[in-house]
Amino acid sequence: MPLPQHRRADAVVTILDAHGRPLADTDVVVEQRRHAFLFGNIGFDFIALANQEGDAAEPPAFGGASVQTATALADLWLDVFNSATLPFYWGNFERVRGRPDTTRMLTAARWFAERGVVVKGHPLAWHTVCAPWLLDLSTDEIADAQDARIRRDVADFAGVIDTWDVINEVVIMPVFDKEPNGLTRLAWDRGRIPTVRLAFDAARQTNPSATLLLNDFDMSTAYECLIEGVLEAGIRIDAIGLQSHMHQGYWGEEKTLAILDRFARFGLPLHLTETTLVSGDLMPAHIKDLNDHQVASWPSTPEGEVRQADELERHYRTLVGHPAVQAATYWGITDDGAWLGAPAGLVRADGTPKPAYDALRRLVKDEWWLAPTTLRTSSTGRVPVSGFLGTYTVDGTLFELTHDSEVVVRLEG
Amino acid sequence: MPLPQHRRADAVVTILDAHGRPLADTDVVVEQRRHAFLFGNIGFDFIALANQEGDAAEPPAFGGASVQTATALADLWLDVFNSATLPFYWGNFERVRGRPDTTRMLTAARWFAERGVVVKGHPLAWHTVCAPWLLDLSTDEIADAQDARIRRDVADFAGVIDTWDVINEVVIMPVFDKEPNGLTRLAWDRGRIPTVRLAFDAARQTNPSATLLLNDFDMSTAYECLIEGVLEAGIRIDAIGLQSHMHQGYWGEEKTLAILDRFARFGLPLHLTETTLVSGDLMPAHIKDLNDHQVASWPSTPEGEVRQADELERHYRTLVGHPAVQAATYWGITDDGAWLGAPAGLVRADGTPKPAYDALRRLVKDEWWLAPTTLRTSSTGRVPVSGFLGTYTVDGTLFELTHDSEVVVRLEG
Repeated sequence: MPLPQHRRADAVVTILDAHGRPLADTDVVVEQRRHAFLFGNIGFDFIALANQEGDAAEPPAFGGASVQTATALADLWLDVFNSATLPFYWGNFERVRGRPDTTRMLTAARWFAERGVVVKGHPLAWHTVCAPWLLDLSTDEIADAQDARIRRDVADFAGVIDTWDVINEVVIMPVFDKEPNGLTRLAWDRGRIPTVRLAFDAARQTNPSATLLLNDFDMSTAYECLIEGVLEAGIRIDAIGLQSHMHQGYWGEEKTLAILDRFARFGLPLHLTETTLVSGDLMPAHIKDLNDHQVASWPSTPEGEVRQADELERHYRTLVGHPAVQAATYWGITDDGAWLGAPAGLVRADGTPKPAYDALRRLVKDEWWLAPTTLRTSSTGRVPVSGFLGTYTVDGTLFELTHDSEVVVRLEG
Repeated sequence: MPLPQHRRADAVVTILDAHGRPLADTDVVVEQRRHAFLFGNIGFDFIALANQEGDAAEPPAFGGASVQTATALADLWLDVFNSATLPFYWGNFERVRGRPDTTRMLTAARWFAERGVVVKGHPLAWHTVCAPWLLDLSTDEIADAQDARIRRDVADFAGVIDTWDVINEVVIMPVFDKEPNGLTRLAWDRGRIPTVRLAFDAARQTNPSATLLLNDFDMSTAYECLIEGVLEAGIRIDAIGLQSHMHQGYWGEEKTLAILDRFARFGLPLHLTETTLVSGDLMPAHIKDLNDHQVASWPSTPEGEVRQADELERHYRTLVGHPAVQAATYWGITDDGAWLGAPAGLVRADGTPKPAYDALRRLVKDEWWLAPTTLRTSSTGRVPVSGFLGTYTVDGTLFELTHDSEVVVRLEG
């Protein structure tokens, strides 16, 4: 399969020396440093590492790799991914009202940012893992607390985290009946769209240049209807977040493309925010809420790992091949402490990469990547560069390869 | 099960004689003439009768009772129902552009209206049975044609038909893929909510006092999301139409109540617009589009008729018992020419009533009905009247029993 043309640029780069003169008839080394496409993964496993902590007494629900393995895991992570999702589940982030986990999470976010990784916060409003103390409040007080929480956190992290899953799973929010929580009450009493507006207004007003997402697992027409209503109500969303946890089996190209086409219709970028493929038994199809599947042991198997690698490669080819998709975040680097105990990681619990890791790395850093390449400039200092959209260097000086066909780079001294 | 209290009124009626004097210490006969609650059925089977036509060469898809049986059937129909749905499927109503079936349908509508029946037109916009000639038009031309169609028909029928299913099945409309049609293109290109707005604006501006419905079969959160978006966009809808074709089995009270509660949340009246229960085999559960089930013969069976009667009674008790429900329309009086050939009628193909007919008649005209009752007025002409909300007579003079506890009736000369 050829590189998707909409992801490529064929540019002519004019190279100037440090004095601004064309660098004629000279060998230069061009190499890619970063993809414009966001290849993401959760960064939950490295919060403790970034904060130089020991293992938590109680492992988190998602991304609970132990501290001992985190350094080696980080190398694998950083070799493939350029975008990290960090957890802002209100019930964990501010378990006690007024005591948010800001310092620790800011350290983790900076750890990623310093390594050239775009960081996203997930989520600012959700009915699950919701702050338990909201239950004691009136609906108006819940709205005020939600508004204040968003304004505080978006402000505290601005410049480090400028991408947010603002509100999560709004389709089900008002009718969610698995546990009492303040957000369901808010969405039931006020409606979905006013709840979305509250959350987006708070985030937008606090960080006008942030990339703000609506995110959902519901790929049915319900989510289309919600998006239409939100857009008609004049609420600006910057990208549509589509979850794709496939614990119950790979969607396949046809279904995936149909979903992408349906949601691309709104003219907004699509972010595949939560992608999972297991390398072991599939979760039975009859289970509706994935959280209901509790098994004592869910091992990764050799056959499962081959299947996962094949499906993952096909899935990423589909996503990267669709012009509306701007980001694809995989949900988990390792099986160690993975959500639901599922073998959904790209790395085994023992720290060795699975075939799926190798497959994805090969796509991201080989097939879709321009390795250091020596090129000779023309007599006017020009050299053609073809590659995946992203950040490059020529002899160490950075430039962006975009759809602009002419680029001028002045080498640093 | 007691009469639902929200459907009852306990009033004191002051009866005046023709000269305006209290009719003291006199026996009067009070009787109910009509329910405020709309007990509806389709009126498709009586269009030919009203127009004194012979049988159509090609029977329609819904409600194709033969003309010979229609008179007897009409007696059964009129004995129970006070609300009729008439077909305005664009592809049938205006098969050739510019030649709408107005005269014939107006005759049918008047036939019902003269018999005290509220008439509803169904639907003004839908992707199925859509005008085939829309396919030759551009999207803008489709929009103009849809707008003009609504304005023309709502105007032509105003005063006879003042209730409309304005737009049908919008949840699926833009992604409907069973047959090419102009409405799907319109809804895909412009979005659901602008399409709803177009249809409602045309109808509202033409007949501001009409009762305008959004109608759908999709009882999922998708329809909730659509309704929220429509209301947030400032489009006024007068009632929410909920289909309930139960060819695949009775929903049961719990599911029905959950649906009613979810849609009642918007504070709008609910109209159960299309209710079906079969008195034969159930349609297999795996069939998603009911139209896909084509069987050579689908007989009504004795066991099926007992089940249908039981379920129908339970269903109507649930609907009438829920304060948000204002109308319940059954979809078919007879098995003769019924949709899909299903034994969904209340009357067998041979014209004899099924147990379900008797059960519904017993509810509507007996348990929930005040038969002629002799009452004696007080010395000041007052008499207490308790009954189901609706239209009554006292000694032949009409009055409305509403939640107002005091009513004054002046007898006609």
